[in-house]
Amino acid sequence: MKVGVNVSLYIKKFGGSSVATPEKMIGVAKRVIYEKKENDRIVIVVSAMGNTTDELIKLAGKVTKEKHGREMDVLLATGEQVAISMLAMTFMNLGVSAVSLTGEQAGIFVKGDYGKSFISEINPERVFNELENGNIVIVAGFQGINSNGNVATLGRGGSDATAVALAGAMHADICEIFTDVEGVYSADPRYVHNAVKMKEITNAEMLEMARLGAEVMQPRSVEIGLQYHIPIHVRSTFSQNEGTVIKETCKTKNNKYVVKGVTHDINVSKVLITGFKNEENIIDIIKNELIKNNISADMFIRDNKNIIFTIKHTDLEDAKIILASLKSEKLFDSIVYESNIAKVSVVGMDMLDSENVLSRVIKALDDVDIAVDIAFKTDISISFIILEKNVKDAVQRIHSEFFNNL
Amino acid sequence: MKVGVNVSLYIKKFGGSSVATPEKMIGVAKRVIYEKKENDRIVIVVSAMGNTTDELIKLAGKVTKEKHGREMDVLLATGEQVAISMLAMTFMNLGVSAVSLTGEQAGIFVKGDYGKSFISEINPERVFNELENGNIVIVAGFQGINSNGNVATLGRGGSDATAVALAGAMHADICEIFTDVEGVYSADPRYVHNAVKMKEITNAEMLEMARLGAEVMQPRSVEIGLQYHIPIHVRSTFSQNEGTVIKETCKTKNNKYVVKGVTHDINVSKVLITGFKNEENIIDIIKNELIKNNISADMFIRDNKNIIFTIKHTDLEDAKIILASLKSEKLFDSIVYESNIAKVSVVGMDMLDSENVLSRVIKALDDVDIAVDIAFKTDISISFIILEKNVKDAVQRIHSEFFNNL
Repeated sequence: MKVGVNVSLYIKKFGGSSVATPEKMIGVAKRVIYEKKENDRIVIVVSAMGNTTDELIKLAGKVTKEKHGREMDVLLATGEQVAISMLAMTFMNLGVSAVSLTGEQAGIFVKGDYGKSFISEINPERVFNELENGNIVIVAGFQGINSNGNVATLGRGGSDATAVALAGAMHADICEIFTDVEGVYSADPRYVHNAVKMKEITNAEMLEMARLGAEVMQPRSVEIGLQYHIPIHVRSTFSQNEGTVIKETCKTKNNKYVVKGVTHDINVSKVLITGFKNEENIIDIIKNELIKNNISADMFIRDNKNIIFTIKHTDLEDAKIILASLKSEKLFDSIVYESNIAKVSVVGMDMLDSENVLSRVIKALDDVDIAVDIAFKTDISISFIILEKNVKDAVQRIHSEFFNNL
Repeated sequence: MKVGVNVSLYIKKFGGSSVATPEKMIGVAKRVIYEKKENDRIVIVVSAMGNTTDELIKLAGKVTKEKHGREMDVLLATGEQVAISMLAMTFMNLGVSAVSLTGEQAGIFVKGDYGKSFISEINPERVFNELENGNIVIVAGFQGINSNGNVATLGRGGSDATAVALAGAMHADICEIFTDVEGVYSADPRYVHNAVKMKEITNAEMLEMARLGAEVMQPRSVEIGLQYHIPIHVRSTFSQNEGTVIKETCKTKNNKYVVKGVTHDINVSKVLITGFKNEENIIDIIKNELIKNNISADMFIRDNKNIIFTIKHTDLEDAKIILASLKSEKLFDSIVYESNIAKVSVVGMDMLDSENVLSRVIKALDDVDIAVDIAFKTDISISFIILEKNVKDAVQRIHSEFFNNL
């Protein structure tokens, strides 16, 4: 194959729902073949078929109650190995040369704990060789080989990370993430029926939206895309429509939107601490103690009397134990928890230039009688704590303010 | 671990029916733990759980009609990978250190075509290391890595070959094949209710019995056992009874039996060729032409007028085409095929010293009015062609002659 200016290297990732059945696999293969231009080189990263991973976890549960990381990863890695061989055979049956590679064969080296390893290095030599031989190359997502020579998995969403990191290592033109949504929307379409599909969005905005509740892409993959300067095209497996491209800078008409997205998160609890003694580093002490126990806290606000912050509601019971311990050390007098709350946020890189976003949100919510408890601003987002029962109305009203009134 | 005279290295192979369910796996693990003496080192070779392999073949059939060997082996290898990780977790849950190794990790190198590769070399370094670390080591049967760096499977029964070859490479004390029968019997217990379980049998006898219709062990594994001087203990997964040891020479009381086994094979057709021209090498020409087409022929008998031999009934249609072609070249005048026949055989290393075996069989069959069409003698067996409808009676009568009249 001649490599010239008209040769493009695509990394295409298909998730478990895209290849859940042999019939869906045939659909995926036909689409890839249909869209492939003569000189295109195609690498496909694939997840386990359907809910295979969950079924394997259930199977392991029948012989052991404890978690045995190394062996669990040997077991789970079979899910992707089934998918790559099946998809390769699907292509071959359609008359197109294809070859499957496990994570190890694709040169994907990982580090870290079993079940949540991270990609440390990629040597894509064999992937390039198989492309040179005229193959569509199908790589197992979610897995790699560690320094002990054992297979290890990347944790949930790991196939996205495989695809983007492979795109980086191979200097691909683009990484396409095929999924069951059409792209990144200005709000959750389940809440806002006329949510706008973004044509482009920056990695920083996407990361902030993910952190604040949007569920489209795993943050790790978005970070890797930024690190390797690879545009990520999030699009639907089941339609031909263009999706959303996540890239470092955006210069499209989308920039008419000062706010890029409205997110919400109901997995939130508020912590109010009063009567604290140590003036200097009390917030750091609390933060560090929580982090040591894998609890992330957010929206720290402090005045002379109170410290307020939020945690995930699912971390509440663990946090109570840790904070009770700090209280017993006389670091503060009292703690109040509040859980019937939600966080709604607006995200956008250009918001800081537009000083009135905060007041527009407050005004918009006030119009529908929704009270804001706390507002918290970062370089790229503003988050608001409201009552959980108001979350849907709040998202709709804020979205309408920034997207439908243009 | 100290290696001393009281340290034994066991290779134990469990087939798919032995580990068909999580419950059966737990049973297997408990038995291994129960029987393990303190200093024993244990390597377990395991097949895919239950009918996993058939299910994977069926799954592949939903995306492709053709056979794609490399990808099919990637797919099938997952069956054993699931089994090794599940069994390792089962041991760990019972408080016993265990580690799983794929064929590649266990240093099993293979050559030949996908789907029917053969083991070319074993480097068991990692297996020894994992044993030294105090683990029960669980190795995937049926698979290895070839010189292209691809997983390849050994074909049906390949897990037995993995176990025996690994035992050879590791100089194990014994290779135990756990299966759903109690051992090697003097005849098929479905035909002969009082068939005798052999305590010992030689590799040569076992190979001849397999060639002549017995279905206990794949011949390849028996050959490997002979090559590496490894005794093979065929025994039941589901009972504690001793089974049958296959070894180079037998010196036990079993030697009271001049015949070691009575086998039968109904997958037989007879070919009768008359009016042949070439006196010298006509049999070689026919044999070679059949072998070129993967058809094995047996029991060649020739007199001035006729050449008679047998083939597998399942090869009959292919053989007809080949022999018709030789006939059209005027090598002979006519061919007659006969298919309602069966082959019964007696096998034993010491039969040659006992000249009356042939006449005892003829007499025994004559007693029950069964006519013998052809008798054919090798160094270690005598086979008889009879009518298929008589096969059960013939086996029973011959068995009674050599085993129950003692």
